[in-house]
Amino acid sequence: MSAIEDLVAELAKLPGIGRKTAQRLTFHLLKEPPEVAGRLAEAIRRVREQVHACGTCGNLSDTDPCAICADPRRDASVLCVVEEPGDLTAIERAGQFRGRYHVLGGRLSPLDGMGPEALQIDRLLARVSNGAGVREVIVATNPSMEGEVTATYLQQVLRVTGVKVTRIARGLPVGGDLEYADGVTIAQALQARREMSETD
Amino acid sequence: MSAIEDLVAELAKLPGIGRKTAQRLTFHLLKEPPEVAGRLAEAIRRVREQVHACGTCGNLSDTDPCAICADPRRDASVLCVVEEPGDLTAIERAGQFRGRYHVLGGRLSPLDGMGPEALQIDRLLARVSNGAGVREVIVATNPSMEGEVTATYLQQVLRVTGVKVTRIARGLPVGGDLEYADGVTIAQALQARREMSETD
Repeated sequence: MSAIEDLVAELAKLPGIGRKTAQRLTFHLLKEPPEVAGRLAEAIRRVREQVHACGTCGNLSDTDPCAICADPRRDASVLCVVEEPGDLTAIERAGQFRGRYHVLGGRLSPLDGMGPEALQIDRLLARVSNGAGVREVIVATNPSMEGEVTATYLQQVLRVTGVKVTRIARGLPVGGDLEYADGVTIAQALQARREMSETD
Repeated sequence: MSAIEDLVAELAKLPGIGRKTAQRLTFHLLKEPPEVAGRLAEAIRRVREQVHACGTCGNLSDTDPCAICADPRRDASVLCVVEEPGDLTAIERAGQFRGRYHVLGGRLSPLDGMGPEALQIDRLLARVSNGAGVREVIVATNPSMEGEVTATYLQQVLRVTGVKVTRIARGLPVGGDLEYADGVTIAQALQARREMSETD
């Protein structure tokens, strides 16, 4: 296999990258100065060498504990449970949440062989039960079928700890358009309606 | 900058890759076994080390001459002129053309400082004039403003050689829908209409 075909094949294995995009990226790297490809190859190697899961929350980080777990200004009494590190990044980007996280490493999905033992649930229970003062667990798994099943399961196993368990709200996305929203989202937005006298 | 942020930044520099996609790709590489990232980084390095422009046609290849120029079964009397190696790949994928290529390395674009001297036009003239028997030059620059200007320029400079110069047809793409076609394409498709008695 030629070097070009080889890189196109490797790029096309990435999620969301088809053959045409892989080819376009390959030609781009060949057109730019060699340093561009060099820096990219180096960044890929470095991320795989230096980044590991945080021993506390499971977030991917090049420090352990990660910057969030190590930050004394983050509220340790509220844990936000997410499926994947990418979800954590999305919540951090929103800039609203000041508590800490727990990354499950997936969602319950019996068909794909993902049972509770494949997720970081024991470690979550340990964090909630170890007397470190966790008062609330916000379950921020995705609003998908599997995310909901995972949320319900977490609620059940956390019950014995007596911690408050909450679920992120579902509804119409801000800036979204009723006309283009799917029926399930609209139904949930109606069901979760709030009195307008409440503060927003 | 952390290793994660660094890789996200490098990926986001690629054309068509936004920050969110860059982040998704980074997390993907971190989730897969380390070999996946290793093979990708290696393929990027290798493509930059081994791939160079073919000394004859300008195509990117890890051999010189490239496989097409070296293939005695390819018709050397017809040269298809394209802007970029990616265009050549697209034509090869169509599997119809049995001649050889000439890659200009861009298109005429005075505003971007791309004059004739920045393109492989002298080399094209030399190939046509060197007595190797080129009978036809198919100008397959893109059907864009700059591609048309380049095509017209090539037609003019090739005139002295006496070679036959043709231009790829413009019209509605196969499988396309009149309703969604732009007006210029429709106008050109009408103008280039053929009698239906012709063989297709």
